Amino acid sequence: MTTCDTEGSGEDRLIAAYFAPLATHPGALGLADDVAVLTPPAGCDLVLETDAIVAGMHFFADDPPETVARKALRINLSDLAAKGARPLGFLLSLALPRGRGEAAVGDRWLAPFARALGEDAAAYGCPLLGGDTVASPGPVMISVTMLGAVPSGTLVRRAGARPGDRVVVSGSIGDAALGLLMRGERVAAGDFGLDAAARDHLVGRYLVPQPRTALAEAVRTHASAAMDVSDGLAGDLAKLCAASGASAVIETARLPLSAPARRVLAAAPELLATVLSGGDDYEIVAAVAPDRLASFAAAAAAAGVPVTEIGEILEGRGPPRVLGPDGSALALDRASFSHF
Amino acid sequence: MTTCDTEGSGEDRLIAAYFAPLATHPGALGLADDVAVLTPPAGCDLVLETDAIVAGMHFFADDPPETVARKALRINLSDLAAKGARPLGFLLSLALPRGRGEAAVGDRWLAPFARALGEDAAAYGCPLLGGDTVASPGPVMISVTMLGAVPSGTLVRRAGARPGDRVVVSGSIGDAALGLLMRGERVAAGDFGLDAAARDHLVGRYLVPQPRTALAEAVRTHASAAMDVSDGLAGDLAKLCAASGASAVIETARLPLSAPARRVLAAAPELLATVLSGGDDYEIVAAVAPDRLASFAAAAAAAGVPVTEIGEILEGRGPPRVLGPDGSALALDRASFSHF
Repeated sequence: MTTCDTEGSGEDRLIAAYFAPLATHPGALGLADDVAVLTPPAGCDLVLETDAIVAGMHFFADDPPETVARKALRINLSDLAAKGARPLGFLLSLALPRGRGEAAVGDRWLAPFARALGEDAAAYGCPLLGGDTVASPGPVMISVTMLGAVPSGTLVRRAGARPGDRVVVSGSIGDAALGLLMRGERVAAGDFGLDAAARDHLVGRYLVPQPRTALAEAVRTHASAAMDVSDGLAGDLAKLCAASGASAVIETARLPLSAPARRVLAAAPELLATVLSGGDDYEIVAAVAPDRLASFAAAAAAAGVPVTEIGEILEGRGPPRVLGPDGSALALDRASFSHF
Repeated sequence: MTTCDTEGSGEDRLIAAYFAPLATHPGALGLADDVAVLTPPAGCDLVLETDAIVAGMHFFADDPPETVARKALRINLSDLAAKGARPLGFLLSLALPRGRGEAAVGDRWLAPFARALGEDAAAYGCPLLGGDTVASPGPVMISVTMLGAVPSGTLVRRAGARPGDRVVVSGSIGDAALGLLMRGERVAAGDFGLDAAARDHLVGRYLVPQPRTALAEAVRTHASAAMDVSDGLAGDLAKLCAASGASAVIETARLPLSAPARRVLAAAPELLATVLSGGDDYEIVAAVAPDRLASFAAAAAAAGVPVTEIGEILEGRGPPRVLGPDGSALALDRASFSHF
């Protein structure tokens, strides 16, 4: 970028320097053509998904470029995993602030961004297939379009939960939402008696999601319905229920919580609402028929992903009932996080 | 958007109101799931492409939302056509300014934007498959990821031009670059003796590209190499040559020019450089072997797309020589348009 911190100019230079090395898939054509070409795997349906993040909205402008790159890719990987799909590759659309102002990004930002993106792409078997890099008068925006595959007809949808199915979540819930509070310095970790490691755990869960790619096959094989938890467990489960024409009940006493989250809630029980509706978990919530639960749990264990039963799909319509620690129903101000 | 000009809130409302009606493909799942699912057409390769546009960079913030929508889709359709591919569908990633400021967009902008997008999607047989809508502290950004298909192994690449191939372009060159000058009011149409209709033609070519979708099959069947002309003919041909390990010569006397462009150049011959390198043409430049030229021309005529031979692929390396009106080589300051 002529206007940034190095010599040389143009989108072509940025692509050659930073992104072409990531385009290891032959169909990417070395990012030296206008398109990518992909022979679809036989007997599969394609699974398509796009998610964007914007500086100042979905990440802090001063977050490390490495964590921004990983987040951009992983939130899309999380969606694929929740649908039972395996990744094939991705396209990257990148808007970069121009000029010499504080917000402008140049090689000092792009080099670690691309390096981390490449590391994640390799780790998740999800090569860069193509992209577009544009200058923008606004903040950094990163839009990833992910392609995945499932054996034909086996996509796990939101619509598919049946009354009696168990509600299961992976990993732990609420870490990222609590981490965001601390990252944004709206609360201090010390207020909850957290040490630096505990704070770092929570903030780290906000900065760098851990998509449950390893759980995709278990979800695909055993779940009636599933989605990833990105906008808050309560709201996302409500969406799954709405799509399935059902309701649900979950018990907060059964929520899988990390040790730091448990400590925060002990000190500030009112943050339970944040845990339930804060978002950025990038875990999977699934409905699993009772007679599939043991097989699902075994497959999850074999994949190394903890899963926890937290409730049940019910007849009827309407948002899930959330039972508080004492067993009475909670009233949540908002079930889901939204920037709008 | 709670912060904009209507009641109701959230991405879900925007999607239900404006984008779900466009998701006519069954694989879009009504935009009510996390992903789209697509059974790839048998015997085909997938062709993937993403292009983004940003307000203040690629379009004017006060351009009509209808033209912005059409441009966002059509610049991607243009790429597909130049590769000989037919469209299958697209994903849309949309960043919208929030707040109540002048830049904020709400329903008054989104309604005509989505309507025009839907009209184009229907006209080009390219349904909306999925997307993401995010709030942004910056300008409107629209990133489209397009999926297309070609019969396996028949993608037309940049690399493939051979010495002796003829250089052919579709439509007319330079209109959009001249239209941009007038749209931006850097020059007045009256300076060139243009009437309102002539000015509107040029500005219209800038605002709303006409992708050469109808030419895709002729390109696929007959061209050795091709790409769309988006960053200026001289620079894009240079890229095609570089990818092919060849050079080229083109004659400006043979350039297909619209009547308004011809009038502008008569009044201001120095704008020839703008015509050659200004960009936004969204025409196709192709290399066609001499023994395929007649068939290509016939197929183009049958498709209703004018094509013009403007030069030849040459042995050697380096940017194409551009012969001016008097037959001598032109020196272009910059061959290609770049925002960086």
